[in-house]
Amino acid sequence: MTRTPLTDLDEVQLLDTTLRDGEQMPGVSMTPGEKVDVARELDAAGVHLIEAGSACTSAGEREAIGRVAGEGLDATVTSFARGVRADVDHALDCGVDGVNLVVPASDKHVETKVGSTRDAVVETTVELVEYAKEHGLWVEVLGEDGSRADLDYLERLLGAGLDAGADRICYCDTVGAADPERTAEVVSRLADLGPTSLHTHDDLGFGLTNVHAGLKAGADTVHGTVLGVGERAGNVALEEVAIALERSYDVDTVELSRLYRLCRAVSEATGVALPPNKAVCGANAFAHESGIHTDGTLKDGTMYEPYPPETVGRERRLVLGKHAGRAGVKAALAEHDVAVDEDELREVVARVKELGERGKRVTDADLLAVADDVRGRERERHVELVDLSATSGGNLPTASVRLRVGDDERVASGTGSGPVDAGLEAVRTALAGDDGERGEGVAFDLDSYHVDAITGGTDAVVTVEVDLSRGDRSVSVSASDADITRASVVGMVDGLDRLLAAEADAADADPGAVADD
Amino acid sequence: MTRTPLTDLDEVQLLDTTLRDGEQMPGVSMTPGEKVDVARELDAAGVHLIEAGSACTSAGEREAIGRVAGEGLDATVTSFARGVRADVDHALDCGVDGVNLVVPASDKHVETKVGSTRDAVVETTVELVEYAKEHGLWVEVLGEDGSRADLDYLERLLGAGLDAGADRICYCDTVGAADPERTAEVVSRLADLGPTSLHTHDDLGFGLTNVHAGLKAGADTVHGTVLGVGERAGNVALEEVAIALERSYDVDTVELSRLYRLCRAVSEATGVALPPNKAVCGANAFAHESGIHTDGTLKDGTMYEPYPPETVGRERRLVLGKHAGRAGVKAALAEHDVAVDEDELREVVARVKELGERGKRVTDADLLAVADDVRGRERERHVELVDLSATSGGNLPTASVRLRVGDDERVASGTGSGPVDAGLEAVRTALAGDDGERGEGVAFDLDSYHVDAITGGTDAVVTVEVDLSRGDRSVSVSASDADITRASVVGMVDGLDRLLAAEADAADADPGAVADD
Repeated sequence: MTRTPLTDLDEVQLLDTTLRDGEQMPGVSMTPGEKVDVARELDAAGVHLIEAGSACTSAGEREAIGRVAGEGLDATVTSFARGVRADVDHALDCGVDGVNLVVPASDKHVETKVGSTRDAVVETTVELVEYAKEHGLWVEVLGEDGSRADLDYLERLLGAGLDAGADRICYCDTVGAADPERTAEVVSRLADLGPTSLHTHDDLGFGLTNVHAGLKAGADTVHGTVLGVGERAGNVALEEVAIALERSYDVDTVELSRLYRLCRAVSEATGVALPPNKAVCGANAFAHESGIHTDGTLKDGTMYEPYPPETVGRERRLVLGKHAGRAGVKAALAEHDVAVDEDELREVVARVKELGERGKRVTDADLLAVADDVRGRERERHVELVDLSATSGGNLPTASVRLRVGDDERVASGTGSGPVDAGLEAVRTALAGDDGERGEGVAFDLDSYHVDAITGGTDAVVTVEVDLSRGDRSVSVSASDADITRASVVGMVDGLDRLLAAEADAADADPGAVADD
Repeated sequence: MTRTPLTDLDEVQLLDTTLRDGEQMPGVSMTPGEKVDVARELDAAGVHLIEAGSACTSAGEREAIGRVAGEGLDATVTSFARGVRADVDHALDCGVDGVNLVVPASDKHVETKVGSTRDAVVETTVELVEYAKEHGLWVEVLGEDGSRADLDYLERLLGAGLDAGADRICYCDTVGAADPERTAEVVSRLADLGPTSLHTHDDLGFGLTNVHAGLKAGADTVHGTVLGVGERAGNVALEEVAIALERSYDVDTVELSRLYRLCRAVSEATGVALPPNKAVCGANAFAHESGIHTDGTLKDGTMYEPYPPETVGRERRLVLGKHAGRAGVKAALAEHDVAVDEDELREVVARVKELGERGKRVTDADLLAVADDVRGRERERHVELVDLSATSGGNLPTASVRLRVGDDERVASGTGSGPVDAGLEAVRTALAGDDGERGEGVAFDLDSYHVDAITGGTDAVVTVEVDLSRGDRSVSVSASDADITRASVVGMVDGLDRLLAAEADAADADPGAVADD
């Protein structure tokens, strides 16, 4: 594919505003400790500038900004400041390297919001830039709602900021209203005045389109947030800017291999889930289900991927469902050391598709159950849940289980922070065994426990997905029930049963190969 | 803002492939009934073409396609078909209006995936187009992986399709690898041959950027999926295409006011959650939290919005959190008929921000509790949870509650599909009362019950958010606990208490205004 130069630059700087504009997302709030954690990840990825917050917000916010500024990061750490001296003072108190000075640019913001005039805003801006520079700050002047501003006035306002000593100016599409033509028009004029940044939002889905248009028009720095968290539809996603510029134009930004890690850190700190179908970070970004895609991908990894998952610190994932095909099913069975002949494979594929059609995510346990059945293998349960009871609501959630383990029955109870946690404890206790005989003590790790968001009401069916492992072997299982306790415990026991079955098979094949617990 | 023409067209056609490419998203599977529901919504919104599925997948899939085709929709209903005659026959069996005939275009796909040659693919394509046309089908020829194909060959392949009678050809950026320059280069050549569609993916975040570039280069139809569901990072989001074209270029596509409804329907059918920060459909797309934004929005709705939420069938939402300001808090209190003086307002704002800083979503109940406290009002509980116990795991989840209602204590139990559902039933029963005295029987509606996805392990703290209402009054509450049963019941009881307090206040002010239950 031809590479067309987008900009003369080899590198575009990124200003991350996850900790400021991102945190303004309704429902999101980070503690100072969480902000420091995210800032460290940003810095490790090589983000050039970190806007750590808005110092005027509160004492707690100033503490957070102060801690980020005191971390000794390579990145330039800044605070947002409105066009009032108190905000600059607050920023200075936090010990930041610079300020993002935001002044109204559109008449709507100058007149209706702030109740001021164009001239007065220019005057204040000049004063504040001079004040900030006198105090040794790096200064960027942002013309708020600039994309909807009168362009001559915007030029005058930001030009005055540069003349007063500002280090750079910023094109702000504050409400995500601009199209790329408007962005190009405005940015080309601003970039003639001095170094220009882009601040874009995604209300029309044009966040990245406008970054593209703005860089082409002469900007050299991009504001963004990880996962595109931010007000309304959010800011442009920093990870998309980074991958798009590198892959399409050979323009460097940050260390791509840390992008996924960064996305997870921000998801954890903000509580914003990673959407499955999102570039770079989504669970499905490098997953393939359909038969055509899986088959193609097994032949050549680049068949259905624009770039290798390792680029952003991830791995490829093949999953099974209604679009499954022979190649994908065969590969999945092989991962569990299950070999089938051609007739059996045809039948397994058909049944997997059938499961998928019923809307089910086909887990490892589902696939193995189908394979057993097709091969006419008696399904010998190694562990089975006979009875389960849990109490919750009070101070000491408690659960008890009766398990059949081989020919034994084991009864145990446990407590926990809730009914599910107590259920897990009861299962562990029932399986702990302490008489030292092989097979008596069965330890396992619960590698992940996931329940999708519940929105259908209190009687909604809940699907629990768990990943369990013992040693090198791991298995994914899901279980559904309107009772979350039951779904969770059934899932765990079924998964464990699968792991034990696999061990028994391996022991039959090679008795020396099974490790003791 | 200046409008720059993007295309000569007044209207761009949309082909929705939610039911085909969207459904290939790992973990997504729709039943025939769900497909019909989504197709009806798409049709009602005026989507021009609906690709209902891939007829070769399975008998179940053919049933679904057949049902959509039999609905008598205004839209043209099509099936995906690979470049083999059996697929076209399957499509014919389903009674569709047309086929999206997908043939390999890049050498990677022609040689490595299909094991064929360029000439052979052209030959097959011509045969199949002629075959499909002879059978009365509308035919679109898609050159798979076209963005990575040799352009001369792509032209030859799709040109041959048109010569054989195809109605249109499609530029496929199958793996989301193209940048807008490449898209413009390819589409400008294809559009010279005949009517050209765009099929873009979002792996680099360029899904919509490429649609923009492709329309500018002469395409007249856009493929997309609702919410951008689809393989890997997904397809371009149909709702973003629609809003961006209308708002930025006055180009019509579908009925915008049905977009939100459509997004919800697809979310429900696919199980893919609406990301909060997503254009058009996200919970926050028209929500404002920060003081600056809320204040501005209260002065002028367009201050921080690119277009009114009603455009896409939604409403504006003001929410409270750490960035809250005076105007927003005052407006929120007024909604609950709470008046405060200036000093009190200052204090309420400070406490709301404090709550927000602790990472809490500030609900109605939180705001009202703060206001009570600031105004020195004794917090008189109308309903209080004294005791709660629930059993689950077995066949008959059961819960019991002891509530203090005014001076009474009420004890009741209930069963349900799980511990939370049983808890709700117990609360309802305890409050039902049947002696006819006012205040004895307290009915309420649980308007929504939401639990975020649980990923932290079995001992993760779960936050339950509920909306309750009685008559015209409604309230939002959240409660957190590692025990999901406790969090849920506490939230319900607290919300109910708030509703009763508001009724009591209103009755004090105007005794005639309170309706009986």
